[in-house]
Amino acid sequence: MTDRGLLIVLSGPSGVGKGTVRKAVFDDPTTSFEYSISMTTRQAREGEVDGVDYYFRTKEQFEQAIADGKMLEYAQYVGNYYGTPLDYVEEILIAGKDVFLEIEVQGALQVRKAMPEGIFIFLTPPDLSELKNRIIGRGTESMDVVEERMSEARREIEMMNAYDYAVVNDIVDNAVQKIKGIVQTEHLKTERVIHKYEKMLEELE
Amino acid sequence: MTDRGLLIVLSGPSGVGKGTVRKAVFDDPTTSFEYSISMTTRQAREGEVDGVDYYFRTKEQFEQAIADGKMLEYAQYVGNYYGTPLDYVEEILIAGKDVFLEIEVQGALQVRKAMPEGIFIFLTPPDLSELKNRIIGRGTESMDVVEERMSEARREIEMMNAYDYAVVNDIVDNAVQKIKGIVQTEHLKTERVIHKYEKMLEELE
Repeated sequence: MTDRGLLIVLSGPSGVGKGTVRKAVFDDPTTSFEYSISMTTRQAREGEVDGVDYYFRTKEQFEQAIADGKMLEYAQYVGNYYGTPLDYVEEILIAGKDVFLEIEVQGALQVRKAMPEGIFIFLTPPDLSELKNRIIGRGTESMDVVEERMSEARREIEMMNAYDYAVVNDIVDNAVQKIKGIVQTEHLKTERVIHKYEKMLEELE
Repeated sequence: MTDRGLLIVLSGPSGVGKGTVRKAVFDDPTTSFEYSISMTTRQAREGEVDGVDYYFRTKEQFEQAIADGKMLEYAQYVGNYYGTPLDYVEEILIAGKDVFLEIEVQGALQVRKAMPEGIFIFLTPPDLSELKNRIIGRGTESMDVVEERMSEARREIEMMNAYDYAVVNDIVDNAVQKIKGIVQTEHLKTERVIHKYEKMLEELE
């Protein structure tokens, strides 16, 4: 029996550097995550290959997939759909491999509903003083701007509640090392390994 | 405000190598755990210092500590008491430092009751085939011996259920690296960091 793989979801506020961290995680020679290929309705750009870079689909096909419950998450940007097909992720997990998704916060909340057993990692800005700087700026911002940034930060922290882990993106290598630690540790959870021992005993009996 | 430290409890069946792994964890230059000094009623051996190697106490003092609820866990071996004083552990945790305890399984279960928020790590024998070998031996064991070992293994696996993580002690360095990963990851749990962000926002408001 192969153990089911883990679904790792990396998300966080826009501009925090999710894409850079995801790339560094995949480039790390000690990781072997499966990459989930997204589906989109946008036109393929030169050199992009269907089924490699994206699954390129028509708007009708994409909406049919949504209607059929075949999208793990999806969103619209500038008139196009982008999303993660459920079947492909499910296949990889059943094969015992870990899937790594890097997605926007709204998508991550959809995945949380569909696969609550996933491991949800929230990437946060460098540190708390950085957050303060982001909000207050150089002290020359109008009250409106500061108030707007406060609301933004409040929303982000609110979002964090839906995640299992918060990883600070101070230095990319540090963030990658922490993410690798999270995945390794999740695989060590007793609930994930005890059945192997139980099965072995059964076989001996 | 200082965050409360984590209580890390390493345990496992006798003979699995808990002491060796604990020593390697403390010798690792990247760890900085506080060591909990045990209390005992046995005589100090030459060179042993009270309050450094152990807290050496009389039987009456130890039993008074138990009666006063001042022992996090304790057990008796060959006529002497051994245990972990609660106050000292609590002090370190409040100071924001992580405490690392390496104790027998019965003690670990007592700690689980007193401090359920602790991180409980079960050290397991090298691997499943090893378990099989340990049970069946070289095929020349009597049914009684095999049956006794099966019961033993069953009890161990039963125990594992009370722990958060299972770490295989194949190579000591691997086990140490996994334990370090567990501690790092536990510190990244959203529930442990979100209040810092919330507090910061409150201060800005």
